[in-house]
Amino acid sequence: MTEPLFLRACRNQPTERTPIWLMRQAGRYMAEYRAVRAKVDFWTLCQTPELACEVTLQPIEAYGLDAAIIFSDLLTLLPPMGAPVEFSKGHGPVVHDGVQAAADVDRLKHFDVADDLGYVAAAVRATVAALPAHVPLIGFAGAPFTLASYLIEGGSSRQFMKTKAFLHQEPAAADRLFALLADVSADLLCLQAEAGCRALQIFDSWAGCLDPADYADWGLRYTKRMVDRIRARHPGVPVIVFAKGTGTYLDLVGQCGADVLGVDWTLSLDRARALVGPSVSLQGNLDPGRLFGPWSALQPAIDRILDAAGDGTGHIFNLGHGIHQHTSPERVGELIRYVQQASAARRTTQG
Amino acid sequence: MTEPLFLRACRNQPTERTPIWLMRQAGRYMAEYRAVRAKVDFWTLCQTPELACEVTLQPIEAYGLDAAIIFSDLLTLLPPMGAPVEFSKGHGPVVHDGVQAAADVDRLKHFDVADDLGYVAAAVRATVAALPAHVPLIGFAGAPFTLASYLIEGGSSRQFMKTKAFLHQEPAAADRLFALLADVSADLLCLQAEAGCRALQIFDSWAGCLDPADYADWGLRYTKRMVDRIRARHPGVPVIVFAKGTGTYLDLVGQCGADVLGVDWTLSLDRARALVGPSVSLQGNLDPGRLFGPWSALQPAIDRILDAAGDGTGHIFNLGHGIHQHTSPERVGELIRYVQQASAARRTTQG
Repeated sequence: MTEPLFLRACRNQPTERTPIWLMRQAGRYMAEYRAVRAKVDFWTLCQTPELACEVTLQPIEAYGLDAAIIFSDLLTLLPPMGAPVEFSKGHGPVVHDGVQAAADVDRLKHFDVADDLGYVAAAVRATVAALPAHVPLIGFAGAPFTLASYLIEGGSSRQFMKTKAFLHQEPAAADRLFALLADVSADLLCLQAEAGCRALQIFDSWAGCLDPADYADWGLRYTKRMVDRIRARHPGVPVIVFAKGTGTYLDLVGQCGADVLGVDWTLSLDRARALVGPSVSLQGNLDPGRLFGPWSALQPAIDRILDAAGDGTGHIFNLGHGIHQHTSPERVGELIRYVQQASAARRTTQG
Repeated sequence: MTEPLFLRACRNQPTERTPIWLMRQAGRYMAEYRAVRAKVDFWTLCQTPELACEVTLQPIEAYGLDAAIIFSDLLTLLPPMGAPVEFSKGHGPVVHDGVQAAADVDRLKHFDVADDLGYVAAAVRATVAALPAHVPLIGFAGAPFTLASYLIEGGSSRQFMKTKAFLHQEPAAADRLFALLADVSADLLCLQAEAGCRALQIFDSWAGCLDPADYADWGLRYTKRMVDRIRARHPGVPVIVFAKGTGTYLDLVGQCGADVLGVDWTLSLDRARALVGPSVSLQGNLDPGRLFGPWSALQPAIDRILDAAGDGTGHIFNLGHGIHQHTSPERVGELIRYVQQASAARRTTQG
C-alpha cells in the first residue's frame, strides 16, 4: 500500500496531486471548535486528551484535509520547566517566573516529557485511532529561539529587545537555556512520534526578528540540535521546520536538515526553491489575509502558488501562518477543494 | 564645493567614507530629548517648530551624524484629512474616524499641505538655518499602504487583516484612498523640499505584511506615484524608500524609481545588491537589537555590514528600523565613531 499523499510529499516523492493542510486548522474560525471552547478554557482543552482529539478531528471531517495536526500549544513545556503560563482573554500568553538573568536559567527543570506531558501522548493516541488511514497526524513543538523569547520577554513581543539583549550579554547562559529547550522540545516531538504521529513540525514563529548571523548562532544551531536528536530516534519520520519571516536567508534555515521547510507568503516558492535547492520539500505559502477577500481575488493567488511550485513535486499547500479566527469557513472549504482539484488537473495536463 | 557626503552617497557617487544616520535618531534614548518631552506632549512637540528644530539638532550636536531628519510623525497628515490621532501613553497611536467602509474614503479631505501642515515647513526652515552646511536635512512622510493601514485598523496592527480585507473586498475604494494618500504625502514631501530638505524619505513601515503580488498592486504602484510626483517638481532631490520587511522582493520595491532603498537587517547588503542591481544606493542595515549587546558583539556585526557593502560606494549606514528608546547613548556614540573611522580606513586600504 502506498504511503499517504502528505507523507510522500514530505519525502519529495511524486504525488498525484498537492496535499493541503492549514496551520491552526483546528481553531476559532470553526463553529464546532467554538462550541467546545465555550465549555472549557484554552489550557483545559490542551490538557484533556478526549477534547484535544475532538477538535483535532473537526477540520478533517469538515474539509477533507490531507493531514491533521494535534491540537496543543507551543508553550505546554514551559510549566513543567517551572514557568507557569496564563492565557488571559484578549491578551497573548503571560509567562511567569521566566528568565530575567543568567541565574534564572539554572532554576529551570529538565523534566521527563513522558511524565509531565503524558496528556499530549494520550491525545495523539486517541486521535490516531480515530483518523482515517490516509490522514497522517502531525506532532509539533517550538524551536528554542521562539520558546526562549517567551521565557525572556514574559510573553509575546514585537521587537524582542530583551531576548536579543540576553543573547548578546549572556551568551553562555543563553547557550545553556537554548540547549535545554532544544532537548526538551525534541523529546516532546519524539513522544508524539512514539504515540503515533507520522510527521513532526518545529515552529520557530519569531526567528524572523534575527539577522542572518544571529539566526545562524541562535536559530539554526539549536534547531539542528533538535532535528539531529529526533533523527537518531525516529529516522523515518519527516521533520518540517517553519521559521516564519526568514525568507531572506531560507538557505541558512535549510541547513538544519529538515525534510520540509515552511515558507511564509513574502517569499515566492520559486525563489524559495532557488535558495534551498531541489532536495527539500516546501510547505506554504498563502497569505491568511487573502482568505478575507472574495473568491475572485483568492483563486489567482492560489494559482500563482501552484505555478511557483513547478511540477508540484515536494510541495505541500498551506498558509504562511496560522489561519485567522475571523476567516469564513466557506472560503476555507473553497480553498481546500480548489487546491486538491486544480493540482490534480495540472498533473494530468503535465503528464 | 563638493556636495555633502550623505548626498553623494544617495547619488551612488564615490565617497571618502560611509555616511551614517539613524532612523529615529532624535528620540527617547537621549536625555536631552526626554528633557524636552517632559515639558510637552508628543503632538505639541511635532507641531511646535522651535521644539521640533531643537530635538532634530540634538543628535547632530551629540554624535556628529552625517544627516539630520526633521522631527515629525508619519501620521501628521491624518488629522487635516479628517481623522484625528491620539497618542496615549503606553499604547500606539489611536486613529479616530478612519476608514471602515468604502463610503468613508469619500469623506476624507484632500487638503492643502501648505495651509494645514505649515508647522512642518517652519520646523524645516528653522533647522536648516541652524545646521552646519555639511549636514543635510532629510524630510519624510509615509507611503500610502502604511498610512492606509492606520486609517483602516484604527491604529497599529500585527496582522493587518482589516486592511487586507478592505483591499480585496473594496479595490475601487482602496484605489481612491491610496491615490489620495499618495498625492497628499508626496505634497508633504515637496513642501519639506521647498523649505530646505535636501533628501526625502518615504517610510512604508508595514509593507512587509504583503505578499509580492499585493505589494505590486498596493505598495509599489502608489509609492511609484509618489516618487513620480516628487521628481516632476524636485528632480534633483534624492528620494529614499524604506519598505520594511520586503527583503524577499526588494527588486520589486526598487521599481518605484527611488535613488536609495532602505534595507532591514534580515537581508544582507550583498544579497540586496544582487536583487536590485548596481544603480541604486542602499541604506542600512544594523539590527537595533544589536545595540543592546556589548561592543565586543556589536563590532563584528558592523564589520559584516561594511564587508557586505563591497567598496562602500552607494552605501549609507543606518539601522534596519528606528532606534529603540532603551538603547545606551554610549553605544550609539561608539557605533557612529566606528562606522566613520573604519569605513574611511577601508577606503584608504582599498585605494
